[in-house]
Amino acid sequence: MRILGIDPGIAIVGFGFVDKKGNQLSPVQYGCIQTEAHTESGERLKQIYEAVCELMDRYQPDEIAVEKLFFNRNVTTAFAVGQARGVVLLAAAQRGVNIAEYTPLQVKQAVVGYGKAEKKQVQEMVKMILKLRVVPKPDDVADALAIAICHAHTAQVTWKINEGSAK
Amino acid sequence: MRILGIDPGIAIVGFGFVDKKGNQLSPVQYGCIQTEAHTESGERLKQIYEAVCELMDRYQPDEIAVEKLFFNRNVTTAFAVGQARGVVLLAAAQRGVNIAEYTPLQVKQAVVGYGKAEKKQVQEMVKMILKLRVVPKPDDVADALAIAICHAHTAQVTWKINEGSAK
Repeated sequence: MRILGIDPGIAIVGFGFVDKKGNQLSPVQYGCIQTEAHTESGERLKQIYEAVCELMDRYQPDEIAVEKLFFNRNVTTAFAVGQARGVVLLAAAQRGVNIAEYTPLQVKQAVVGYGKAEKKQVQEMVKMILKLRVVPKPDDVADALAIAICHAHTAQVTWKINEGSAK
Repeated sequence: MRILGIDPGIAIVGFGFVDKKGNQLSPVQYGCIQTEAHTESGERLKQIYEAVCELMDRYQPDEIAVEKLFFNRNVTTAFAVGQARGVVLLAAAQRGVNIAEYTPLQVKQAVVGYGKAEKKQVQEMVKMILKLRVVPKPDDVADALAIAICHAHTAQVTWKINEGSAK
């Protein structure tokens, strides 16, 4: 199963493709899409949409995972991030790929085993689990990989059932 | 000049196409796109995106106007509305159509002449300006037409200059 974790934003969209074979997770490709600050927001959303479509078509994820909501930021940020998230969900829906949503608490719990873990702890665990040499930068990339790992751990039981009934 | 005013939301997207000839405004088509509450959000965004694309391709707006932000709602609502707005901006950007953004204050000022006007006053003015027999329902449709009217009034000077230099 190939999972795409995405951390959407209008300036930076972090993404991480992770393959899951049995209990082994391995990174396939990760990085970020960046848009220029002084560009019109419709144009930035178009750039994000096109880049996300290209990534999905190239790496063919089976499932996509995004953060459910962030509760601790302001309305303006929520609005801007919502817009970016909207075009990501659109690209996924157009390809018939399921989207799973996780709260920051669920991501921390799944990756570190502790819902109130610090950002740094999450990043170190991402590095360890995926056997990376360094913590991926910017933070958005590490966050995207953390969401993918969260989905890999959480979706485990369901997937075993699905695989069993499909074969 | 044909203006498309849009009031985006995840459950209801109000839209209104208004033609502007000289100082005369006339309604071309207006209504709303609705999505089912119990549908997955990616699917709802896909339905909104497809409907908006179809409307833009059928009625070919020269300019699009949307509300800039709403400040008085909560983060969860802002996030959901942001997602819907994202796919609307994407559809516009893909067609190279300019998007103008107005605050609720600007809309009220342009339509009623008073920034603190009540919702009912705005709706009555929309009805009067566009010579409609009744106030369009639901509210989202009247709001979309109000935004289109706001853009028609606000963009006036710029457009006269553009028309002058183009001919």
